[in-house]
Amino acid sequence: MDLESVKKYLERDRSRNATTIDEMPSKFFEPFVMQGLSIDLLEPGRLICSMIVPPRLLNTGNFLHGGATATLVDIVGSAVIYTVGAPFTGVSVEINVSYLDAAYVGEEIEIESKVLRVGKAIAVVSVELRKKKTGKIIAQGRHTKYLAVSSKM
Amino acid sequence: MDLESVKKYLERDRSRNATTIDEMPSKFFEPFVMQGLSIDLLEPGRLICSMIVPPRLLNTGNFLHGGATATLVDIVGSAVIYTVGAPFTGVSVEINVSYLDAAYVGEEIEIESKVLRVGKAIAVVSVELRKKKTGKIIAQGRHTKYLAVSSKM
Amino acid sequence: MDLESVKKYLERDRSRNATTIDEMPSKFFEPFVMQGLSIDLLEPGRLICSMIVPPRLLNTGNFLHGGATATLVDIVGSAVIYTVGAPFTGVSVEINVSYLDAAYVGEEIEIESKVLRVGKAIAVVSVELRKKKTGKIIAQGRHTKYLAVSSKM
Amino acid sequence: MDLESVKKYLERDRSRNATTIDEMPSKFFEPFVMQGLSIDLLEPGRLICSMIVPPRLLNTGNFLHGGATATLVDIVGSAVIYTVGAPFTGVSVEINVSYLDAAYVGEEIEIESKVLRVGKAIAVVSVELRKKKTGKIIAQGRHTKYLAVSSKM
Repeated sequence: MDLESVKKYLERDRSRNATTIDEMPSKFFEPFVMQGLSIDLLEPGRLICSMIVPPRLLNTGNFLHGGATATLVDIVGSAVIYTVGAPFTGVSVEINVSYLDAAYVGEEIEIESKVLRVGKAIAVVSVELRKKKTGKIIAQGRHTKYLAVSSKM
Repeated sequence: MDLESVKKYLERDRSRNATTIDEMPSKFFEPFVMQGLSIDLLEPGRLICSMIVPPRLLNTGNFLHGGATATLVDIVGSAVIYTVGAPFTGVSVEINVSYLDAAYVGEEIEIESKVLRVGKAIAVVSVELRKKKTGKIIAQGRHTKYLAVSSKM
Repeated sequence: MDLESVKKYLERDRSRNATTIDEMPSKFFEPFVMQGLSIDLLEPGRLICSMIVPPRLLNTGNFLHGGATATLVDIVGSAVIYTVGAPFTGVSVEINVSYLDAAYVGEEIEIESKVLRVGKAIAVVSVELRKKKTGKIIAQGRHTKYLAVSSKM
Repeated sequence: MDLESVKKYLERDRSRNATTIDEMPSKFFEPFVMQGLSIDLLEPGRLICSMIVPPRLLNTGNFLHGGATATLVDIVGSAVIYTVGAPFTGVSVEINVSYLDAAYVGEEIEIESKVLRVGKAIAVVSVELRKKKTGKIIAQGRHTKYLAVSSKM
């Protein structure tokens, strides 16, 4: 691909949606990704959510976007920290995700998040996305957070 | 935080935006994140984009959402693979991001992506987000892709 | 710490062991780390090993060295790929490890490795180190390998 | 590969070196890996070391072992934290490494470590291994440490 095409790829669709997107409300990113997420299980240190893959979260290959997957790892991985009594979930230090299989539109996925460690300062959680029907793993990640935000990171 | 509050946290704002979000067009996730991104430098193996942090991409702490950051690592890190002549950018295998500083609304950030390796099958790129004014690093990540998608992964 | 001290830190003990270490046999790194490892469970897609933390693998803080932990993630995470019939375990593409607790000398640890994906080209495994007595997690990591080494990576 | 072969792979060479290895001194892992490392540049926030790939650190494919590479990311990435005045380098929270090219015995490599962030509690550094002759990148990683070890992690 030549450099001109890269430019087109990054600047595509720019005009079509510009006004709509620019006028979207503050902090709309989380609702945009999470809309449709429901809680299946919630216990200390463990949280399972489920979701039907919606058209808006597809990538150009027509399966769940890697950025949306990483965002679900962030959000569901933060929520599980609350379940062991932490007063807030801190700020992200590191997120990593391995992509293992594609999740297509209309497929129901479940997202399981587990506490690996919640200390005074550092929390680490694992998050796994699976196909609900078969249990096949779509993605697995870990999320590290710094909890003592009131003091200095 | 008790379990009931975790439930509320995950299910907040549900009704307010539900219809709007459910009706959003297919593959809207990338335009939603990328709107406002412009290209500053484009050469073989290296790409710099910039962006003003928009209100829609803030987290509850009022700075750029970690999921949006991971998505920019995905998108800009994929585009740079094209610059060395790869016919397509493949599928994601792994993404990791370290979060180093907060980027607030209205701040101009630059996103630099570099090719570390583009082989026949595996591409690895690094992506760094910085404050344009001071050069201070906001986040650094790496993105691994599998290129030979026509054959079996 | 001043720069001179950093120099001393990196160059410490240099003379004492130099000859002994330089004369060590080729490929001695794996035996050096693995000595004492035994297999507890071995089935398709899953492998559990155990080990008493030996004095040689301690760090300056007197617990299992992070580099040794990463090496165990590499080795045990490679071996589990064989269990699903792969003819070889390929080359490493990415390794990541979260460190969750300290493992002290004489403690028995178990290392569980699971296949997340073994495709034609890409394998991803998870590896978890736990204290055998309590089940407490010491470290969790993932290892990505490229399998089709005979062809071009 | 059948399960019996996996067992043999993990238990190979066991008897040959057992006594020698078991009698090695405490904390021998770092000297074992670092022997031969020298400092090329040392300034606040940046450290470059070099090393000739020694026979003892090879893997079964006859190039620098991935576990040794991860250990160098750990060690050199810890030392650079000292260069900005931190009183100690803390404990590892996360290490990740992408493997980009092979380093063969006798090749001179350089290891560059840079501070991305050193705060009160969290330090993040990047580490890159390159072939000294060509500058070709062998591996790139990041290392996250928790600094305030005297207080509770």
